[in-house]
Amino acid sequence: MIGIFDSGIGGLTVVKRVFEILPGYQILYFGDTARTPYGGRSREVIQKYALEDAEILIENGAKIIIIACNTVSAVAFDFLKEKIKLPIFEVVTPAVEKAIQITRNKRIGVIGTRATVSSKIFEKLIHEKNPQIQVFQNPAPLLVPLVEEGWLKKPETRMIVKKYLLPLKLKQIDTLILACTHYPFLKEIIQRKIGQRVKLVDPGEAVVLIVKKFLTQNPEIEKSLIKGGNHQFMVSDLTPKFQEIAKNWLGREVKLGEIKIK
Amino acid sequence: MIGIFDSGIGGLTVVKRVFEILPGYQILYFGDTARTPYGGRSREVIQKYALEDAEILIENGAKIIIIACNTVSAVAFDFLKEKIKLPIFEVVTPAVEKAIQITRNKRIGVIGTRATVSSKIFEKLIHEKNPQIQVFQNPAPLLVPLVEEGWLKKPETRMIVKKYLLPLKLKQIDTLILACTHYPFLKEIIQRKIGQRVKLVDPGEAVVLIVKKFLTQNPEIEKSLIKGGNHQFMVSDLTPKFQEIAKNWLGREVKLGEIKIK
Repeated sequence: MIGIFDSGIGGLTVVKRVFEILPGYQILYFGDTARTPYGGRSREVIQKYALEDAEILIENGAKIIIIACNTVSAVAFDFLKEKIKLPIFEVVTPAVEKAIQITRNKRIGVIGTRATVSSKIFEKLIHEKNPQIQVFQNPAPLLVPLVEEGWLKKPETRMIVKKYLLPLKLKQIDTLILACTHYPFLKEIIQRKIGQRVKLVDPGEAVVLIVKKFLTQNPEIEKSLIKGGNHQFMVSDLTPKFQEIAKNWLGREVKLGEIKIK
Repeated sequence: MIGIFDSGIGGLTVVKRVFEILPGYQILYFGDTARTPYGGRSREVIQKYALEDAEILIENGAKIIIIACNTVSAVAFDFLKEKIKLPIFEVVTPAVEKAIQITRNKRIGVIGTRATVSSKIFEKLIHEKNPQIQVFQNPAPLLVPLVEEGWLKKPETRMIVKKYLLPLKLKQIDTLILACTHYPFLKEIIQRKIGQRVKLVDPGEAVVLIVKKFLTQNPEIEKSLIKGGNHQFMVSDLTPKFQEIAKNWLGREVKLGEIKIK
């Protein structure tokens, strides 16, 4: 199985990309809804939670792992890579590579959680590849609870998106990395507020393309993955809200269950 | 020590009331910032977290405990009362009693987290005392992240408050229970949006008055409390944001520390 984890529901945007780009593989999703959100927490706490999440996927049969969470990718990937023996993929590097390909004016914007932005990982990776690119970041922490509440089209959400994007718009970025897997839920509003000329980078899409390439190059791992549509969506706290959002977003009935954090 | 716990920073509004109404007693505060917010989680998860929080206070010397969280009071008080041997106080009953005293037109409004509202505890307790009172509830979950972000006076916050209060305003309530300890941070906006004629009930104030009475009636417990200003504010994840809000809200420098959840 392809194991995918996130702090909560945001990773479902990555699942949607797996359905599109890698159809046919069985998915095991784990969302840590009992401890969501991660984005305002310290590095140490995020690392601890992320390791527990990855272990749950492994115990339940995952053969490769996608970290469907920018916060975890930004502050806990190196830590996880040391502890976990399976192939493990994060969303930051693929997004960085894609943004570098896309930008024309060498001005890239990044919105993410407070933890992701403070980590400065996007700036660091972009500058490693091309020090001439300017990177402008702004934390946009309230977008996570707005998405979790399902306020995807409300005027208040539009205003808050606009407020978070204004400083980046003034910097005349031509590429914007949506550095939180919750944000694709708000893609249309974000596109409208930042302007139609700015290209959006969805890290979920970028990572799934990398995974696809990896599976082509590693047929023995590809073969170990179960095929078929018997996907499992597990969370650490199963609430009606999660069930509703999962169904609406994925556009299909999915099997939902609960795995408790010890 | 008087032990006070909350899922995060909301309980600081109760601390402020303790400073005003019970000055001189040493406070031990614990905010479970590594797992905040509780308000959208299931009953079972909230009970587990609440018991762990209370045990941390007891291990560190609390002699009485105030649950400075409506969500925990609403869904985990009976559970905690069975497990904990110390005097323990919750914020729901005192708020209910006060609201019943205040209302003239017998129409009481309640705003709270999703878990608090779904518990229907306010409705149940009010009807036990007076079945003729009508209770109108509305969950207001986004107010917690708005407060945690420090967006106390932004236009978006005003709009969201207005949206949450409108259904209650239409019901012509004359009393509104702020059934989440985060909400007193937004007291002015709430008062303006619901109208000056509506009386607000702050459960934090109500519970501290009850504790004061209890201490007068139980001198042996009152004597066991340490006096002095050496308050301790502990959280499960110490972030700069918490430090900033604690300092601003309490209007003084406070000693902050971290106690990890195992």
